[in-house]
Amino acid sequence: MGQPFRLHPQLQQDCHTLGRCGSLHVLLHRNASLPWLIVVPATDASELFTMSAALRRESLTCCQRLSDWLLQREQITKINFAAIGNMVPQLHLHLVGRYPGDPCWPRPVWGNLNTDAVYDAVDIAKLREQLADRIDLRW
Amino acid sequence: MGQPFRLHPQLQQDCHTLGRCGSLHVLLHRNASLPWLIVVPATDASELFTMSAALRRESLTCCQRLSDWLLQREQITKINFAAIGNMVPQLHLHLVGRYPGDPCWPRPVWGNLNTDAVYDAVDIAKLREQLADRIDLRW
Repeated sequence: MGQPFRLHPQLQQDCHTLGRCGSLHVLLHRNASLPWLIVVPATDASELFTMSAALRRESLTCCQRLSDWLLQREQITKINFAAIGNMVPQLHLHLVGRYPGDPCWPRPVWGNLNTDAVYDAVDIAKLREQLADRIDLRW
Repeated sequence: MGQPFRLHPQLQQDCHTLGRCGSLHVLLHRNASLPWLIVVPATDASELFTMSAALRRESLTCCQRLSDWLLQREQITKINFAAIGNMVPQLHLHLVGRYPGDPCWPRPVWGNLNTDAVYDAVDIAKLREQLADRIDLRW
């Protein structure tokens, strides 16, 4: 038996947990300057293209639904999607809703987002509710 | 009839063309400091998650093979994969081979790669040859 899957401490520190969706943890970056979701599949694989095909499919289906949802939010016209992992080795997929003139436009957020804002508990509860139907999110 | 697909001028300026693989253009970023491939599906869709499911599947299968190939290269231990497109609206998928201590580590390359190096014609011919079998690349 392997160890039970645990979120990397850095992801716990940087993010709110929105919930679970099947084998995926769905996180919200604490910096509320931009809508920034992070999907963490429960796997030891560290690369998008070396994880199991089934789990990659599940991850990308979830990302697609999150992307659709982000694109329906006010202002958002673009999704920045990335699997980087140079700092945090645990595989995690970024989905950032962007628009021309946003606090970091046109630079990618990683290392460049210098504004800060916070979510309150009501914001997070609302997001969980909105996502519950979209991606079968369990809290 | 739509317009024939043309590579965005900025991608042409920034990249060497390695070849075609089905509906995909496979490019090599001119900055040889790091192995940096860019896959451009022939589509008007500007988002990874709004393109057709069939073309996304084709694109990701190609990216997986390119990722496998990059990870077999000397030093490379990590792939940075991203669809950003804040500057160049034509959908393009980045695959960058990374390793601790590389010229940009641990920062993402976008906006941060300050070293420069160039490929010569022999390098590019070799890369095309290596990739020809891997991804059925046509030149």
